[in-house]
Formats: sequence, C-alpha cells, structure tokens
Amino acid sequence: MSKGIKIVTIGGGSSYTPELIEGFIKRYDELPITELWLVDIEAGKEKLEIIGSLAKRMIQKAGVPIDVHLTLDRREALKDADFVTTQFRVGLLDARAKDERIPIKYGVIGQETNGPGGLFKGLRTIPVILEICKDIEELCPNAWLVNFTNPAGMVTEAVLRYSNLKKVVGLCNVPIGMKMGIASAMDVEPSRIHVDFAGLNHMVFGLNVYLDGVSILDSVIERMTDPNNEMTMKNISGLAWEPDFIRALGVIPCGYHRYYYKTSEMLAEEIEAAETVGTRAEVVQKLEHELFEIYKNPELDIKPPQLEKRGGAFYSDAACSLINSIYNDKHDIQPVNTRNNGAIASIPNDSAVEVNCVITKEGPIPIAVGDIPVAARGLVQQIKSFERVASEAAVTGDYQTALLAMTINPLVHSDKAAKQILDEMLAAHKEYLPQFTQPVKV
Amino acid sequence: MSKGIKIVTIGGGSSYTPELIEGFIKRYDELPITELWLVDIEAGKEKLEIIGSLAKRMIQKAGVPIDVHLTLDRREALKDADFVTTQFRVGLLDARAKDERIPIKYGVIGQETNGPGGLFKGLRTIPVILEICKDIEELCPNAWLVNFTNPAGMVTEAVLRYSNLKKVVGLCNVPIGMKMGIASAMDVEPSRIHVDFAGLNHMVFGLNVYLDGVSILDSVIERMTDPNNEMTMKNISGLAWEPDFIRALGVIPCGYHRYYYKTSEMLAEEIEAAETVGTRAEVVQKLEHELFEIYKNPELDIKPPQLEKRGGAFYSDAACSLINSIYNDKHDIQPVNTRNNGAIASIPNDSAVEVNCVITKEGPIPIAVGDIPVAARGLVQQIKSFERVASEAAVTGDYQTALLAMTINPLVHSDKAAKQILDEMLAAHKEYLPQFTQPVKV
Amino acid sequence: MSKGIKIVTIGGGSSYTPELIEGFIKRYDELPITELWLVDIEAGKEKLEIIGSLAKRMIQKAGVPIDVHLTLDRREALKDADFVTTQFRVGLLDARAKDERIPIKYGVIGQETNGPGGLFKGLRTIPVILEICKDIEELCPNAWLVNFTNPAGMVTEAVLRYSNLKKVVGLCNVPIGMKMGIASAMDVEPSRIHVDFAGLNHMVFGLNVYLDGVSILDSVIERMTDPNNEMTMKNISGLAWEPDFIRALGVIPCGYHRYYYKTSEMLAEEIEAAETVGTRAEVVQKLEHELFEIYKNPELDIKPPQLEKRGGAFYSDAACSLINSIYNDKHDIQPVNTRNNGAIASIPNDSAVEVNCVITKEGPIPIAVGDIPVAARGLVQQIKSFERVASEAAVTGDYQTALLAMTINPLVHSDKAAKQILDEMLAAHKEYLPQFTQPVKV
Amino acid sequence: MSKGIKIVTIGGGSSYTPELIEGFIKRYDELPITELWLVDIEAGKEKLEIIGSLAKRMIQKAGVPIDVHLTLDRREALKDADFVTTQFRVGLLDARAKDERIPIKYGVIGQETNGPGGLFKGLRTIPVILEICKDIEELCPNAWLVNFTNPAGMVTEAVLRYSNLKKVVGLCNVPIGMKMGIASAMDVEPSRIHVDFAGLNHMVFGLNVYLDGVSILDSVIERMTDPNNEMTMKNISGLAWEPDFIRALGVIPCGYHRYYYKTSEMLAEEIEAAETVGTRAEVVQKLEHELFEIYKNPELDIKPPQLEKRGGAFYSDAACSLINSIYNDKHDIQPVNTRNNGAIASIPNDSAVEVNCVITKEGPIPIAVGDIPVAARGLVQQIKSFERVASEAAVTGDYQTALLAMTINPLVHSDKAAKQILDEMLAAHKEYLPQFTQPVKV
Repeated sequence: MSKGIKIVTIGGGSSYTPELIEGFIKRYDELPITELWLVDIEAGKEKLEIIGSLAKRMIQKAGVPIDVHLTLDRREALKDADFVTTQFRVGLLDARAKDERIPIKYGVIGQETNGPGGLFKGLRTIPVILEICKDIEELCPNAWLVNFTNPAGMVTEAVLRYSNLKKVVGLCNVPIGMKMGIASAMDVEPSRIHVDFAGLNHMVFGLNVYLDGVSILDSVIERMTDPNNEMTMKNISGLAWEPDFIRALGVIPCGYHRYYYKTSEMLAEEIEAAETVGTRAEVVQKLEHELFEIYKNPELDIKPPQLEKRGGAFYSDAACSLINSIYNDKHDIQPVNTRNNGAIASIPNDSAVEVNCVITKEGPIPIAVGDIPVAARGLVQQIKSFERVASEAAVTGDYQTALLAMTINPLVHSDKAAKQILDEMLAAHKEYLPQFTQPVKV
Repeated sequence: MSKGIKIVTIGGGSSYTPELIEGFIKRYDELPITELWLVDIEAGKEKLEIIGSLAKRMIQKAGVPIDVHLTLDRREALKDADFVTTQFRVGLLDARAKDERIPIKYGVIGQETNGPGGLFKGLRTIPVILEICKDIEELCPNAWLVNFTNPAGMVTEAVLRYSNLKKVVGLCNVPIGMKMGIASAMDVEPSRIHVDFAGLNHMVFGLNVYLDGVSILDSVIERMTDPNNEMTMKNISGLAWEPDFIRALGVIPCGYHRYYYKTSEMLAEEIEAAETVGTRAEVVQKLEHELFEIYKNPELDIKPPQLEKRGGAFYSDAACSLINSIYNDKHDIQPVNTRNNGAIASIPNDSAVEVNCVITKEGPIPIAVGDIPVAARGLVQQIKSFERVASEAAVTGDYQTALLAMTINPLVHSDKAAKQILDEMLAAHKEYLPQFTQPVKV
Repeated sequence: MSKGIKIVTIGGGSSYTPELIEGFIKRYDELPITELWLVDIEAGKEKLEIIGSLAKRMIQKAGVPIDVHLTLDRREALKDADFVTTQFRVGLLDARAKDERIPIKYGVIGQETNGPGGLFKGLRTIPVILEICKDIEELCPNAWLVNFTNPAGMVTEAVLRYSNLKKVVGLCNVPIGMKMGIASAMDVEPSRIHVDFAGLNHMVFGLNVYLDGVSILDSVIERMTDPNNEMTMKNISGLAWEPDFIRALGVIPCGYHRYYYKTSEMLAEEIEAAETVGTRAEVVQKLEHELFEIYKNPELDIKPPQLEKRGGAFYSDAACSLINSIYNDKHDIQPVNTRNNGAIASIPNDSAVEVNCVITKEGPIPIAVGDIPVAARGLVQQIKSFERVASEAAVTGDYQTALLAMTINPLVHSDKAAKQILDEMLAAHKEYLPQFTQPVKV
Repeated sequence: MSKGIKIVTIGGGSSYTPELIEGFIKRYDELPITELWLVDIEAGKEKLEIIGSLAKRMIQKAGVPIDVHLTLDRREALKDADFVTTQFRVGLLDARAKDERIPIKYGVIGQETNGPGGLFKGLRTIPVILEICKDIEELCPNAWLVNFTNPAGMVTEAVLRYSNLKKVVGLCNVPIGMKMGIASAMDVEPSRIHVDFAGLNHMVFGLNVYLDGVSILDSVIERMTDPNNEMTMKNISGLAWEPDFIRALGVIPCGYHRYYYKTSEMLAEEIEAAETVGTRAEVVQKLEHELFEIYKNPELDIKPPQLEKRGGAFYSDAACSLINSIYNDKHDIQPVNTRNNGAIASIPNDSAVEVNCVITKEGPIPIAVGDIPVAARGLVQQIKSFERVASEAAVTGDYQTALLAMTINPLVHSDKAAKQILDEMLAAHKEYLPQFTQPVKV
C-alpha cells in the first residue's frame, strides 16, 4: 500500500455511491486514495456514467487527487486493489419488487433481507459474490472485501463457509443508525454514546448503552416505550413497541425486529402499501429516479441532501470509517459482520455475527460480549439457521434445500405456502438463478 | 426399598390411571409394589373414588398384593415413598378449554403445551410442582419424581432451575408413540425399531431410525411423505407434510411440529373445530365423561379399550418401564426429559432436553447425540427460550416476564396481540395464579 | 453379514491371540464366525504358524465350525471382512525395549503408551494403521475396525483426524481391569459393579462406582488408600497412593495415572528394573518366549493359564463383547475409544476419548458424563494435546512437530532433553520411520 | 468521581510504590487524583513512612495537588475510594524465601506464583483479598479493585468465584515486558508493536505480533531462537530456548514458561543459587534494603533508577494506564486478568484469564482470540486446574484440597513429595494460615 490506495466499488452505479465519495473526500488526509474504480454491469452503464461524472465533480471541487475510473470490466478493475467494496443488486429494484410482492399473495411478508425476499436476494447474490471472491484471490490477494450488499449476514456466512477468502468483512448501517437514533433520543452528541452491539445482521441488539462510559440502558429502554421516540430507521415502519414487552426484553432491538415481534401489524402495513403507494422497492424506484435526475445536473458537485431519504443514512460514515481503521490499524471499535469466534456464546464459533470488533490492519477482532438475553436467543438462532440453509441452497442450487430455508424462515407459517412462494419466486427470478437448473416442480 | 415399593400418584383421579395400574400389574414380578397411593384434591374426590374402586378390582383380579390407598392428603401419602408420579391438571379441563379458546379469538393457536395455552398451563402448574418438590425433600428424600404433567419440558426446566430436588425425570408418550407409528408404518415389530430421539418435549426429533440396528431413516422419511402414513398421534391433526420439506429436513419430526411448520393450516383447523365439535379440551371432556361412566361399572376389572382414544396411548408402557428400569438399575435406553449435560451440542448443558438416556438406579444418563440439524436448531432454541422465560414467570409472578414469554412464543406474531391474550388469560385463570398478585393491567 | 461372520486379525501371531480365540469360541452361539483370518508379516511368520496351529486345535476341541486362515497377504485377508482387529507391534518388542531404555538415559520415563516411548510407538504405528484404513475402505467398506494396538488413544485420534474411515473403535483392557479390580477389592461379583468411565486411553477415571445401582464411590476410594488393595494391573507397579490425595481427587484413577502423579517414584523403579531384571519389554520378551514354547505343544488345545501373567487380562472379554454387541446391536454399555461428541465437556467434540458408550450395530454412542473433576482436567488436556501433536507428527513426518510433541509430554521436563531423546530415538527406530525422510539433525 | 479521584494503595509501603507515584504524576492532566492513601500494616510501618515521605517529595517537586495520606487503618482509607490497588505481601519476603527454599529440599522448584510457592502465597493472600473485597463492598461500592498482588491469576480466580465484587481486574507486568522486549529485539518503537496476548497470568502467550499492523510473528520467533535475544525479564533466568521447539510452538511464550518447558534446567539453577547467592527472595531482600536506604535520602525527589533492577519494570505504566483508561473510558486495548467470557475457547467462560481487553469505564471487555495452540492447551489447563483447586483450598482451609492442589501442580512430580512439601510449608507459614485450623498431619 505504499503508493496510495486503490479502491474498487462493485455496483459503482448505485445511488449510494455519492455517500461513499463524500466519505473518502472527508478522510483524504488519513486515507490517501489515489485510484477509485467504479464497476458496474452493462445494464447499469447509464447510471454508472451519471454517478461517475458526479463523483469526478465532487472530487474536483474538494481538490483531492483521487483518480476515478469507470468500467464494466470487473477483472481489469480488481488488479492490485487494496479494498473492494460491493454494493450491487442482482436484478435491480425490479427483482426486489418481486421479492416483496410475491410472498404477500400468500399472506407472508417479503422482507428483502431476512425474510422470503431475503432468501431470493441471497440466492441471486451469493454466487456472484463467490465469483468476486475468486477474482480477488487471483487478482488482488491482499485486498479486503468490504461487503455492503444485502442480505449482508447471509452473504458473510456464505463467504466464510464457501470461499477461501480470509479478508472479508460485512457492513451494515443499522448499528450506526441505532447509535445515532439513541443519541438523538437522549439529546446528546453521538460521540458520547457507546453501544454494546451483538446479534446478527438486521437482527442486532444493543445489549447495553453508555453515556460517557456510564450505562444508561434503562433510560434508553424507557425512551423507546414512547411511541414518538426517534430511534426508528427511515426505511422501516415506526410501529410502536409494546412498552412492557420492551422493558422485559431488557435490551435494545433494531428496527428490523419489528418484522418478527410485530409480524401481524407489519404484514398489514405491507399489504396496504402494496395496494396503495407500492412496496418499498417501488417507492425506492421512484426515489432513485428522482435522485438520478438530480445527479445528472452538471452544476451539482456535492452529495445532494435528498439522498438521505433513501434509507442508507450513515453508510458513508460506517464504510469509510471501517476502511480507514483497517488501513491505519486504528484498533478502534466498530460493529461489523465477521466470524463469531466465541464472542457470542450461543452462536457457533464459525458462524457470521454482527458484533462490536476491534478494527485492525489484519481485520476485525470480535469483542466477547457473553451472550444475548435468553428470550432473544431463539429468534436469533432461527435467523442463523435460515442464513446457513439459505447459503447452502444458493451454492448448491438444490430445490429441497431452498424449500427448507423458506419453510424455517420465521415469517413463513406453512410448509405448503413455503412451497407455493418458492415455486412462484423461482419462476419469476429464473434468469438470475442459473444454479437452479432443474425444472421448477410446480 | 427392602420391603416392597411405595408409589404415590398425584392426580390419581385422572382417567389415565387405569393405564398405570395395568402397567404395574404386568410388571409385578420385577417391580414388587406393595403400596400405591392415589392422591387428589377435594374437587377431584368423586373421580378419585371411581378410579380407586376400579384399580382395586383390577388388582384383585390380577391377584397381586398391591395395597391401594386413596387420599386427599398429599403429605400423608408422600411419607417414605419410593416413586412419586405427577399427572394432575390444575383447573381441570375447563382451564384447558380456556387455554385453547382465548388465543383463537386473537388469531393465535392455543396449544396447551408449547403455545400460549402451554404458557398458562405452566403458570398454573409449576408453583404446585415446586411445592411437591419441597414436600418430597422433606418427607421422602430418596424418592424419584416422575412427572407426566404437561407442559413436561417446561416443568422439568423449572424443577432443574428452581428446586433442590435432584431425583426428577420428565416423561412424555410422544417418543414411544413415534416409535410405534414407525413400526406400524414399516410393518415390523416395535421391538426391532430403535430411534435416536433428541430435542425438547413436544419438539423432539427422530435423528435416525434403525431396523435391527441398520439405519432405515430414508425409507421412513419417504413413508412420511405419504399423507396416509400411520405416524400420527391420535390427539393431533394428521395434516400431510410437504414431501420435499420433510425430505430436506432429513430427520423425523413429531406430531407437534405441525403447529410450527403448518401454523396456518393448524390454526384454520382449530378455528373450525372450535366453531363445530369444540376444542380438543371440550372433546376430551366428553370422552372423559364417557370413560368415567364405563369405569363406574362394578363388573369392570380391566382397563377398558375405550381409554386408548383418549390420546395417552403408551403412557403406561413408558411410565412403568421407566420406573422399572430405575428400580432394577436396568441400564436400558429410554427417551426422557432430563438435564442436557452435553448430549445435544446447541442446547445449554443445564437445560432440560428430551433425549435418549441410559436408565439407571441413580437416574437417567443422556446419550451424546451430537446435534440436531442446523435447520431445526432455531425452532428448538425458540421453544427452549420460551420454556425458560415462562418458568421464570411462573416462579416470580412477574407480569412483564409473562408478557415476554408470550411474545417470544413462535405461535404468537405480535407483541400487541401477546398482551391482549395475556391479559384476558390472566383474568380468566385468576384463581389458579396466586403468584400474579398485582392487579392485571388491562 | 448373512452367511456368517468373517473376522480378520492383523498381528495374528501375537501371544494374545489365544485369548481372542477363546472368546470367540465361548460366544459362538451369538456370534457365528465362519472365517477367522490371522494376518502377520514375514518377520512374524513362525509365530503366526504356532498361533495358527494352536487356534485350530482349540477350535477343533470346541467343535465350532470356524475356518482359520493364516496369511502374510493382508489385502487378500481383508476382502469382504466384517470385522478387522489390529493388535500388531511395529518393530516388535525390540522396538519397545528401545522406547523404554533410551529416555531413561536422560532421566525420563519411557512409558510405551502416553510417554516418550508412546510417541515413538505412535510414530511407527499410525502410518501403518492409516494404510490399513485405506485397504478397508477399498476391500471391505462395511467392516468395523477394532483397534487394540497401543497407543490406542493416539491411534484413534489419528484415525478420526486423518482417515475417511467412519467405522472405527479403539479398545483397551484398562477399564475392564479396573472394574474387575474393584469387584475383587469389594469382594462382590463383577456383574454387580458398574463404573462411569471417562477420560482418555490410559488416562481414564472411574467417575463413580455403583454396586447394584447404588453409589459406593466413597468406599472404593477408601479401599484404594489401602496400599494392599487389589486394584492394580499386572503390568504396572502397584506403588501406593497418598491417601489424602486420592480422597481429595474424589474419583478412581487408573494404574497408568501413577506415571503422572508418582513420576519420581516410577522413574526410580524403572531405572532400577533396567539395571536388574530388565525393562518391561525385556521381561515380556522372556514371558513371550516361554509362552510360545507352551503354545507349540501339540497336545495343548485350550488357552494356557500362563497367558494371564502377560498383562492383557480381560482383553478377550473386552474385545469379543464389543464385537458381539456391534454384531447383535445389543445397546449395552462398554467403555471404548471414540469421538467425544459432547460426552466430556472439557474435551473438544471431535477428539477421541475413552468413555462409556452404548454399543450398537452402527457403532458406539458415548454417554454424556458431564465432566471430569477440575483437578484432573489439566493432566487430561495435556495428554490430549500430546496425542494430537504426536498424531500430526506421525502423519507429516515433521521433525519440529515431533519435537513439540516430545517437549509437551508431561513426563518430559526439558526442551533440551526432549531434543536429545528425540534425536537418539529417531536414529534408533530409523527403519520403521520412513516418513521422517530428512536427515536427523543431531 | 466529580471532585477528583481518590486512590487507595494497600501495601503502600512496597518498594514499587515510587513507580506508581511517578505514573500518577505523569498522567495528572488526564487523571486528576486528589487523594492518594497509602495503607500498610503495623509490621510495615517504617517502610510506609519512608515511602510516604518520598512520595510527598516527588509530588511536591512535580507541582501537582495530590494529597498523600499514610495510614495503618485500611477501613478508614477505603471510605469512598474510586480505585483500590493491592500490592501487599502477606509474610513479607521472609515468607517468599520459605516458599522458595522448602520445595527445593524435595527436588521441586518453589516458584512463587504458579508453583508450590505460589500455592502458599495464594493460601496466605486470598483470605486477605476477600476481606478487602468485603470492605470495598461496604465502604466504596463503586470503586475498582486493581490487584497487582501475586499470584495475580489465582487471586483473580478466587475473587471471581468467592466474592460478590464485580469491579475487579488483575494486572501483571509480564505482557508489557514482553512487548517491550520484542520492540527492543526488533529495534523499533514499542508504540508500533501490537501483541495478541492470551493465556493465564504468568502463563500468557503472544499469539501474534504486529509491527504497524502487519504480522511479524515469524521474525520474532526466529529472533527468540537466538540465545542472546533481549526478550527476557530481569527476574527470570534467561536460559535459551531450544530453537526447533520454539518454532514448532509457533507463538511467543513468556519468561515464566521456562519453569515448565525447562524444568530440569531451572531447578538446577535454583538449587545452585540457593547454595550461593541465595534464592530470588533473598536477593530481592538485599535489593530492597538498598532501595530503602536510597529512598530515605531526603534529597531524593524522583523515582531512583535503581528501582528497575527490582523486576517490576513497567508496572507503573501498566497500572496507571489501566486506571486512566477505566477513568476516562478510553476503549483502548490492554492485557489484563478478567473473566474469560468466551475469549479463549478452551477455557471455561467463568474462569480468570489474562487476555487483551477493551478497557472501558465499566471495566475490561475481553477480545475473542479464538484459542491458544493445541500444543499449549494442556499446560494452560493444568495451571488453570491448579489455580481453581488452590483457590478453593485457600477459602476452605481444607487440608486434602491443599494436597490436591500441590500434587496436580506441573512442577511437582510425586504425591508423596507433595505431601511432604505441603506439611513442611503449612508448619512454616502457620501464623499466616489461620484458616488451616486443624493440626497439620505430619
């Protein structure tokens, strides 16, 4: 890494990319990037060019000597990279819309990360990620793969189990969002808040919360029982928690926990949305369209404020901080997705978890948190079981394994419905699932 | 135990008791019982007398010198007992009917063992069991407590955690029923079949099945995919499994797994039953009424064949075999509920499991089965979490803990609904829940 | 196994073989062996013929239709075998004598199983065993490998880690010897005694002892504090235990524990023996010579009583019982060496342990014993570490790994001495260690 | 902690105290101590006064407003303390001299921390520490107990198991000494070196070593094979490692590992020292005498350079950094003794380990290191077993338990010798072992 850093962003045409650019610019003094390669596929070429132009304008305005390269040739880009970030979406938002709409027909929430939709996102994404891993092993074996692509937990699990790559870390903006939400709710500077994060991706808990090092867990929980608290993510419904439930749970759930602890209410909301404003994917499609119109403006040379509505708030901070801490061997603490290694007692040592880690040049080292509360272990194990079986299905293309993953998902309440949803989704996503070669058994 | 065995059966007025009597008579040569005390409460006095008379007639006919004592004084009965069996039902079948009917109102299956109904059965039962444990410690410290009372898993968990009693074992007829069903489906003598049982009570799996020592697991699974297979219990709907799901699962689920893998279908059936023939409790109430009419017949001196419809088939065999093997230090293998102690890798060592054990005079020693399949671990952990939180609620009488147990139950899909069900059930069962002293917060 | 059982005994020329023959004859009704192949190498041809003739005379006298085959062609013998027993000694007793004499020069006990001698026995034996495993996979994939060859724990560890063979079990006569010794010391029939065995090979403990199912552990420990107790094996010094130590330990050690808890005294004895009567190997060589003279007698058609002095008492019972229980799916309990799988909490699940198992047609299933006492865990882990590193050295032929194994052995107290012993032994055993191809670095 | 920090140092008359004073002075800006109470016992009064005067002169010279209080009344000092450091020595160096001399008579190394001497140091120290814990609970329940008193691992184990105090951390200068030695050997600034420490107190390994975040483990190991390397502590013999052993081990041992991997050589050295210059305690006694002569000098107002020879180098840095990081919630990484909690896989979660931790206001949180190498696990478990049994003996005063601890210590090679050493040491230390009330059974 002597002559400046080379970063490759796969899925560079994503609407989130300006966040990343902004983050790199801010940290240029510590993180001297010389080359930033934005990679996309043919279908994303137009977006890639819009983003690339905006990126160049932002960098020019900032006056930092980062060279931006745009390419559709992933292997060319990867050569000698130092960091590879992945933020692509196989099948684009159209596929996500199917992930959300098809399950609803059968009375089941789609949920694009840990639900039936997440299963299909995983089935589409994992084979591509594993190919990227192979390219990295060949073309830039010292590079770190920093994966933002959802379902980040399942993807990390798959890379840990089915790839030889060791330098991989999964990243999500949920923990930083929780921290920011707590700071806002408690009306203090975020830097004074520390949260003991532990769990799985989109199934993470704040086991404890500290203000200047002193626990304020009880106050934060009490604040959460207020239905108007500020601790909700933009892209998830803010349905209020049952106060006595949240008190008895005794830890801070993330926004995604609503899908499991408020399944009925979330399903009702999603059905209504599907019939009115559209599913989240469809809303996001509109938002993205508007964003790209804004991005096209040749006068624009900063990250536009409209991006924040998109749901990926703080991704930039999380991602750039992580890369910065790896590069500079900072030994600071950040919540990422990595191998458990004993950090959470009731999860196997070789499984992926989302947990506070010390971030070093040799990667994240998890902090031993003990265990998540007894009451939460079942749900966490259920999602971990789902992630493992789903990963296996993605790699093997085995129909029965995919059905097993669908049936054991906690949002699915019937083996018959599981088969119906699976079959319809396999057909709908056929072009992105080459590993499922056998004819779908409808 | 030099002068013959003293057995105390708490809940002696149960309609199941004749099964037990028959089992003791059959094994008299090995298991020389001299005193059998049937204990019940004031409300069960009439039934106790009917059963007691029948028991005496059965014993007289068999010509074995077992003295039958009937009493409402539990402590008198326990003095110097060798075995104490518990098979009582706090609140009788009326309470069970409420356990089943109230959740249905909120779109949730009641399920009297591991569901919301099971939570309340546990809240009513556990304090009584813990009192019995204290009595045993005082009055017959060398006795074994053999618990058949449901929810047997939660009760065993509670005794392991909250009592000083060491000699306790939980028993269920589900495993023996599975073995018998498999033997029948494969058309072979039950004695030639061996099943590796592991899991939790009413959440037990057959990890492998052997015929004369050779695995026939695949054939048995294939047989299960036939909707007309014989492997279903009398008291649970025989809804067919989705064939590819059951193949992918790769182990034999028990009948109760339908509540979790076919929740929607089971709920639909229960709603329909509630509106037509009545819930299971109501059906059983009629069956019991008929049974007791039969029992009253002074000519009857054997176990009447009608008892088999009641759902407790093989209880006699299971219970008497267990007592026999403990008494005679047989070192044979039986599936019971006991402390895990490493037998199932993904369950804490100090939790109750239902697993094959070597049965000795010093109690059951679990066989190390390795682990249940990844795909099943989540659900099993969820029920284990539920059992632990429910046990704590039963002991503490804490409203929030009870709400937590209700919300994390896999059959409950909403924290709001959980609170509504909890509140209505707390009010409905008030007289049997003295530990919940605080006014119900409706 | 339809047409009678084929058994192959590798190392068939061993002086122990008549024990085995006697055991097979006694169990013929249950265990209908039709073919018994005794296999040996060229160097053992004469002994093989002596043993083979005796075996035939014994079988003829007993009137059972077992065909005895003698061969130097292992692969011919293995074809379609049902059970393969291994009891060979690479380098014969001459090699053992070196295992014992060389370490003594450096003030270290040789100890041919878990000591420096055991390391070299393992280095010589493991590659041969792994070749046999490959032959079995090819020629008789359904056969069970029952290994008696020492160091049985290290050999089992190596097979579990470095072979694909699943049907393997390690066997030792130490546990049955302990049981017999206890029965004798307590003056009761052995069949009334049950011992909870757990630990490693030659490092096994009796965690509890029962007479007719009731614990008599304290009495047995008290009996052990008597220096004249009967619980000592023929082939190990009967040096008395320090009474208060054995009471505080609270479990029954095996004879081999003396090497670790009485290292100084055992070393003194061995040095004296080496200077007078000879090491154990040398004593045994004389015994063996005498035995073979007896075996040659054409009138002899039973196992001669002199064999018992040899040290392998009860091997016949242990081995034949094990084979019988596997063949007949007996589900009885026997202590064998197998994969831990959770049975002993402080040992990794994938390591070999010596523990009570339920013996079935599909092999031994360990019983979950919880854990060995805290005070004993360190020593057990040390031998387990030694076994694992030694196995790796045997497979890789890596000098540094062998030195590591030697240095961490609890009988070795200096890294310098470890190197000296290692170098001298590598040179002395050169012809049996082809995997150590690099020139020895003296 | 609003009005400045109150620190209480028990054993304030120690010759190490000037190190601590220097450290506090250096960090005053971050760590505003207002009161420093030096506590000692009657027998240490003179030393306390010498140290107290020097401390006051040092503080005055530095111009920081720290009030130094000297007292023999521990309870008066503890009132409302923020931090309590313990560095006392029950029986003073005279007792240590006996710890070292008595075992040598029986051919056993004394070793004052993890050997027979350490057992007796623990027996004398643990009851006193547990009394201090009770005082802290009563008089300053929010204070942190930072223990430097050896055997620090055994003491931490005892406090975790037998005290209700939660805010306790054990500290040793071995890890920081290793880091400094490595930096010196590799000729780089210590701040550029990071070591992954894991193990037990005085049995800690460097699992990996990084220079500017990049692993240099192999180079450091190669450097260690040079007998003239700089990585040896002042107070332990620098006997050279066997190069191939240290390479095969693959991690960095600490200086104390020589007692176990070079037992014979260390014993020979100690015997020779005992016969010539005296044991370490006797050498230190002279050093201490000289130091106190220097301390008495009323002109001296800095830490004198002669202190470094004493063996406690870097204690000041380690201790003051730890207190500073707790006070300021620094979330930096330091190796301390604390509850394992999953950080080292093969050690029970509830045992004390010495491992890298994130240091926060709520205490140290261990980093999950995975596991120590297989080859080292046995020895580590043996010391852990020893620490646990020794702690139990210290608390119960049970003779058999003490004998068990002595016998299982890896430096002791005979149960008979163990009893002899134990009996002589119990008699020699009688006045400091009131819990051993029963007459010594000689």
